This record gives sequence, structure tokens and C-alpha cells, in this order.
Amino acid sequence: MIVETKYYKINETIKLESGRELKEVEVAYETYGELNGTKDNAILLLHALTGDAHAAGYHEGDSKPGWWDDMVGSGKAFDTDKYFVICSNMLGGCKGTTGPSSINPDTGREYGLDFPVITIEDVVKVQKKLIDFLGVKKLCVAGGSMGGMQAMEWALSYDEMVSHVIIIASTPKLSAQSIAFNAVGRNAILSDPNWNNGNYYHGEKPDKGLAIARMVGHITYLCEEAMHSKFARRFQDKDSPDFSFDIDFEVESYLAHQGKIFVDRFDANSYLYITKAVDYFDIEAKYGSLEEAFKNTHAKYLIMSFSSDWLFPTAQSKELCNALMKNKKDVSFCEIESPCGHDAFLLEYETQTNIIKSFLKEEVNE
Amino acid sequence: MIVETKYYKINETIKLESGRELKEVEVAYETYGELNGTKDNAILLLHALTGDAHAAGYHEGDSKPGWWDDMVGSGKAFDTDKYFVICSNMLGGCKGTTGPSSINPDTGREYGLDFPVITIEDVVKVQKKLIDFLGVKKLCVAGGSMGGMQAMEWALSYDEMVSHVIIIASTPKLSAQSIAFNAVGRNAILSDPNWNNGNYYHGEKPDKGLAIARMVGHITYLCEEAMHSKFARRFQDKDSPDFSFDIDFEVESYLAHQGKIFVDRFDANSYLYITKAVDYFDIEAKYGSLEEAFKNTHAKYLIMSFSSDWLFPTAQSKELCNALMKNKKDVSFCEIESPCGHDAFLLEYETQTNIIKSFLKEEVNE
Repeated sequence: MIVETKYYKINETIKLESGRELKEVEVAYETYGELNGTKDNAILLLHALTGDAHAAGYHEGDSKPGWWDDMVGSGKAFDTDKYFVICSNMLGGCKGTTGPSSINPDTGREYGLDFPVITIEDVVKVQKKLIDFLGVKKLCVAGGSMGGMQAMEWALSYDEMVSHVIIIASTPKLSAQSIAFNAVGRNAILSDPNWNNGNYYHGEKPDKGLAIARMVGHITYLCEEAMHSKFARRFQDKDSPDFSFDIDFEVESYLAHQGKIFVDRFDANSYLYITKAVDYFDIEAKYGSLEEAFKNTHAKYLIMSFSSDWLFPTAQSKELCNALMKNKKDVSFCEIESPCGHDAFLLEYETQTNIIKSFLKEEVNE
Repeated sequence: MIVETKYYKINETIKLESGRELKEVEVAYETYGELNGTKDNAILLLHALTGDAHAAGYHEGDSKPGWWDDMVGSGKAFDTDKYFVICSNMLGGCKGTTGPSSINPDTGREYGLDFPVITIEDVVKVQKKLIDFLGVKKLCVAGGSMGGMQAMEWALSYDEMVSHVIIIASTPKLSAQSIAFNAVGRNAILSDPNWNNGNYYHGEKPDKGLAIARMVGHITYLCEEAMHSKFARRFQDKDSPDFSFDIDFEVESYLAHQGKIFVDRFDANSYLYITKAVDYFDIEAKYGSLEEAFKNTHAKYLIMSFSSDWLFPTAQSKELCNALMKNKKDVSFCEIESPCGHDAFLLEYETQTNIIKSFLKEEVNE
């Protein structure tokens, strides 16, 4: 499946949760499958921290498919024979949608820190404009990790449009520990002299700081079990230590590699803005309680967690589940046994496929 | 109890595990209590990553006591009425014992990266010189975290001298995940331009990198539960986000504070050398197996872990325990229920005191 990213320019000012405004927002998005006549067979996929609009298929000339290709396509979990599947890059991102690396129309230069701090509510507000533009009347929203937060936000803000909500490896609010990990990552970027208060787009980039942020992230995406089975204490290309500060262990090499490839594809300022949006997300604080929050929603919910995910552990999914059940909402929950840690939502596609197909079944029969 | 740090200069060259040598090693140490006539009532305390020789009592004019003052003194776990308690700063440290910030006698300048990479075996070898100098014939060794590794190394290398081994919140080898956290910390230091290949002693120090390393460390010393009860998602000095990249949450403020105070008291190069020594420590790799390693030792062992310690979890202590039991060694094990994470070994002194007193009882009656 050869696909290409399209762009939608929103012709109105977006008012943000902070009170600030964004005048010109462009949204990068992709679609797979066809919208039906009643315009109610849409599925909006919501990407995680560093994802993009390219969820599935191949861009012309690429050897690697989109980030959730295992889940999106003919006969797959998100079946493009039946559904009109949409994925857009998030507001604040760096993959085609307006973010800190975009040109500020007021100055003609990159926004940098002039970009307003955004929230998950803002991110979803922009997605809603795209969905309206595409003519969709009713949709299923689905996402893992931060994508799951956006799915929750959709259910809360646009209940009238949302039929199904799929929340994978996510949480209604970060724990103090998760905020701490994000804070370390941001500190690494802010401490890199090349960051230069966010103005680095025409010089050296804060690659070292961004790489360290990514390394911290990757430790939290795996779990000890996954790290052990991947690397144990094996030395990299040698059998014993070389008594230097070069890379000794395979796990060090893995992290260094992840850091290195990340800086080529991601913008450090976007990393700051997006992790901040994630830190701020807190349904309980906004609505008084989780139970109160979901009281007036009408969608069906599918919540999945992974046994070895210690970043957004099962207990956090269960909290959400309990709040929905107390409201007598239609909710399915599954903790999937997996040794892959938080990353499981990108890897354990077979189990997820079965569960999602079963959850969406009623749609199929319509 | 007013105490002061003393210094012992070793009058011989120390041959290191790497094959390299150190010509002039000075050891900073403190002692509490008196050595008895048979010179067998000594307890050597072994400090963790960033500790020092000042385990107990007050330095003249100080308002804070040594790092394990709750455990060391008259009537305490390590009872100075009965025992001659010793603590020394480790080789490679920056608190009086020779390390990368010491003057290299060959050049007249600070060692920096000319300091040889050291191992836990080297650290203990230097401690042994001090113990011999002090005239001690028989001793108990005790330490938490990296201090526990040194206690194991003492049991293995100097069996003839060691009567009791107390290993707290420690592990016979780091997991891949723990190596990963250390690697991130080192990367933060190495990436700081002020680090300058280790030559920063006469200019700006790599404070930003070292602070980030410390922040990562502190996340691993607490646990999610401890972080939640300390900070939850409370904002720092405000009730709502201010939509900036300043500190928002209390947990961010805590980490920033920990980073800030750490750089005033610790040397970045020492942090590199010591974390590397910890990464390299692997009894299994050295002896073929844990069981094989402890086969010919004669000491009594006390092993303690803490229920919420996810850095060196109970399972790792149990592995060590099992190896000792298979060898029919005299071993006591206790997992202490605590919400304090890895830091518990510095905080849960009452329970530890009872257990240690009971373990050392036979000594008391001698």
C-alpha cells in the first residue's frame, strides 16, 4: 500500500487551553480506506510521544512502513476494507503539523519558544477540525500511550461524535515518577548549550541533550525483563571490559543507537512541548474525579494494558475502568500478558488485533 | 560525638585489576569506638555511590551528622561501646581518598581521565591496606547498595579476616536496566561541554551534566509509591500549571534541588569512575557461578532487602542467599517491608538495628 501524507490548513484561529491563540495551523494527515455514505465508518488513530501521521503503508521509495502498519490494513485490526482510517500528526509535533519548528507568521522565523504551551485538549481540538473537514460524522478513536490520553479527551470533549474508544497502555494521569522521567529528559535538552533558548534552527542542534532524553525514555519503554532478555550483561563486540568510558555493554550500545537515530528524526523543542502536554494531562483534576468525568459520555470503551508495562501500569488502566463501570458504561478491559514492557502496544499486534476486532464487531455487522 | 577525618598514606604501589598501577594512594577514614586487645571487634562500614568516610558523629561546627549516624554510636546497630567502627572513603572517590580529582604525582596536575578505571576489587584492596595499618585482625564488613558489593568482595578476597558480612539492598551484579540508568548518567556528564574530556578542575565544572545524572539516580532511589506519597501531582508553590518550561510540579522541584546540591559536593569524574566500577561488578562472571564463588568462605552472612526497592530488588538478594545456602553457609535473610524504595537502607534504621543487633549478638557475648 503506497500512501502519502496530505495537509489541511485550518482557516481559523485556534484558542488554546492556556488562553493563548494560534493563527495558522496546518495538519499533516494520512487516510487509509474509504469513508462510507453515512460517514460513520471512520477510525482516528492517535499517535504516541514521537509518532507521526504515517501510521500505515509505505511512502514511495521507503523500505519501512508506517508505525502501526501491523495493525492497519486489509483484514487487520483496523481493517481498511471496512473502515476509513485516519491518522494525523499532533499539534506541537515536527512531522508536518504546526509546532515549534514551524514558521511563526508574525515573525517569519521558526516559533521556537514563542510557540504556546499546548495541552492534550488543544491537540484534540485541532484533530476535531480535521475530522470535520473530512466530513466524518461518527468515529472510533484509538491510541496507545499518549494516544490513549487523546482518545480519552475525545470521549470527554466530543461525546456526540465518538462511538468507540480504544485506550491502550495509557493512563488518565501521569504518576510523579513518570513526570520525573519527563523532567529529566527536558532538563537534558534545556542544559544543552546548543539548545540556545530554543533558537537553534539555523545552527548546531541540541542533539546531545535530545539523545539523553531519548535514552531515558527507552529505559521506561522496556522493562527489566525485556532488557534482560535482549541484552543481559553481554559486552558489545568483546568478552570482557576494556576499562575505559567507551561503550562496554550491549545495553549501552542500544541506548546510544536509539539516541543517535532519534535526533535525526525529531525536534528537541517538540519534545519539550509534547512531554509538557503529557505531564499536564489529568482528567481527575479537571473534572473533580474520574467518575464525574465520564458520567455523560455514550461511547463504548476498550481498555488494554500490558503486564510488564511499568511506565503506565495496569493499575492505572483499572482505575479508568472502575470509573467507567461505576457509571455503568459499556467497557471491556484486558491486561495482555507480555514481556515487552510499555513498547508492547507497538509489538503485540496479534493479541491486540483479536481483541480489537471482537470489540468493533458490531460496527462490522452494521 | 565530635569526630574528624584522618588520612592514611599507603607506602606501596597498588596494582589494579585492569593491570594498571597507582603509586600514591591516600585513604580518608574515620573510626568510632575502640579496638580491643584481641583486635577482633572491628566493623568496617562500606559506603554507597556518593558516600564518604564520615559515617557518624559530627564534624566540629557541623549541624548535620555523618551519613549513617542513625546506625552508628553508643547503643546503636553498630554499637561503638562494643565495636571499633571504621569507615573510609572509597578509591576513586572525591572525599579525601585518592581519585580522579587528586594530584597525579607524575604530572603535578589532577589526574582527570589519566586516573585508571577501577573495580570493586581494587576498592576493597585499598580498604584492606587501611585495615592492616589499623592493626585489625578480624572484622565484620557491612554496607548498603554499592557498599554491599564491597562487603561481598571482602568475603571473597579476604575470607581469613572476615567474621560477619552484612549486605543491605545490594546485588551480586547489576541488571541491564541498572547499567542503562548508569549509562544515561555518564552520558549526561560526558555530553556537558564543561566536562572537557575530564579536564575541568581549573574552570567551569560540568555541573549541568552531573545534576542530570543525579536526577536520574534519585528516580531510581525512590519508588513510585514513595514519590506518590512525597509529591503526588502537586504543583510547586501554585495550584495550576503556568504553561511554561519552568518547574511546575513538586517532584520536578525535588529533583532539581537534589541535582543542585549534589554538584557542590561531588566530582563528576568520580561519578564516572564509581558507576563504572559498579557496572563491572559481577561475581558470577568472575567465579563461574555465585555458588562457586562463595564455596570456600567462612563468614556468617546477613542479607537484607526492601520490599519497594526496584533498583536492587529482593529477587537479587535471594539469588545470593540461595547460593550461600547451597553451600551450607550460615546465612540470615530478611526482606523488610518499606515504602521508601532503595533509599530505605538509609532511612529504615529501627528495623535494621534490631536485625543487625540480633545477628551480631554472638560477638556481643564473647
